[in-house]
Amino acid sequence: MPRTNDSRARTVRAAAELISERGVAGTGLRDVVAAAGTPRGSLSHHFPGGKDELVIEAVTWSALKLRERLDALAGGDPPATVAEVLAAMVRWWERGMLAVGFNGGCVVAATVVDGTGTDVRRAAQRAFESWIDPLTDIAEVDGLAPVDARRFAVTVVAAVEGALLLCRSGETLQPLHDVQSTMLTLAEALKTAPEPRGSGADQRENN
Amino acid sequence: MPRTNDSRARTVRAAAELISERGVAGTGLRDVVAAAGTPRGSLSHHFPGGKDELVIEAVTWSALKLRERLDALAGGDPPATVAEVLAAMVRWWERGMLAVGFNGGCVVAATVVDGTGTDVRRAAQRAFESWIDPLTDIAEVDGLAPVDARRFAVTVVAAVEGALLLCRSGETLQPLHDVQSTMLTLAEALKTAPEPRGSGADQRENN
Repeated sequence: MPRTNDSRARTVRAAAELISERGVAGTGLRDVVAAAGTPRGSLSHHFPGGKDELVIEAVTWSALKLRERLDALAGGDPPATVAEVLAAMVRWWERGMLAVGFNGGCVVAATVVDGTGTDVRRAAQRAFESWIDPLTDIAEVDGLAPVDARRFAVTVVAAVEGALLLCRSGETLQPLHDVQSTMLTLAEALKTAPEPRGSGADQRENN
Repeated sequence: MPRTNDSRARTVRAAAELISERGVAGTGLRDVVAAAGTPRGSLSHHFPGGKDELVIEAVTWSALKLRERLDALAGGDPPATVAEVLAAMVRWWERGMLAVGFNGGCVVAATVVDGTGTDVRRAAQRAFESWIDPLTDIAEVDGLAPVDARRFAVTVVAAVEGALLLCRSGETLQPLHDVQSTMLTLAEALKTAPEPRGSGADQRENN
């Protein structure tokens, strides 16, 4: 018999996998229970808030896995370079894409696209920000001005998320490789920029 | 009484709007019929292939609107610059986001995320490519080497698609503006690059 905590964790993981493959609306609670191999009653026991609560947990759990990887890179001694973090992110998503035969994607993206409620949307926003933050730190340490570092980190997350859509639709990893290459060029260009571009203050309103 | 063609077009448009807001799995055929204000029977009449056929039409129709705008920019006299096409794309999506109060997004992205069948996936792939092609042309005319122009166009489509996810989750247009700014920096950096980066041949495998 699995312990209670195992049952909760297995449910979150199963939900994340199904959402990654089919989106939120396409993921039924029965499918989650079946995939997790947990008793039906455990769902309402662990997630009294229903599907929204489960989806938030799945988004948060998925995001945390990559966040921890990025934090480790940002906090390394010596700290990771932009080139290293880009390579690590691309490897991360390559492995994910290949593991599901291109029949899956980012749980956070799937959540946003399905037009879910406010609480779920906020969890998705926190997930994206949790990746943008360590990427900003790495870019700053690697020589970008703060405003450029943040803009670079937003662009990396956006470009990788979009690349995953292109990869899945075309069943190819090439868009991820294209993005890795261009983001490296972008970082170098921002490093050599004479000063931060644009007006700094209004560029940070989404913090 | 609307004409038959009106009824078909209204159905496609309603499907696109609903998919943009709720995803494919969250869009029921009854909802489409209700939103289009067409008789229920017209659905099977116009779309004998069922929901997949309707989704493919919605993706294709949505993609064509932006494709036509990009083609007009690419074929202008003088042809558009990268800066102009980036501004036009960002305005396009800004207007779309504001029109739905951040409660919508790209139909093509929504289609990919929901893990639909092969035919729908291919329609999404064609949609993305239909934007990448004119963007590549514009970038080449504006001074990028062919391999860099294609990589740049892929990155722009990816970054804009990802930015839309960030915009929707955070209810802010800032990520689109960040991407506009960084993509301009990237284009300038690629223009001044001494020669095409990487090995050209293996970078184009997803054509």
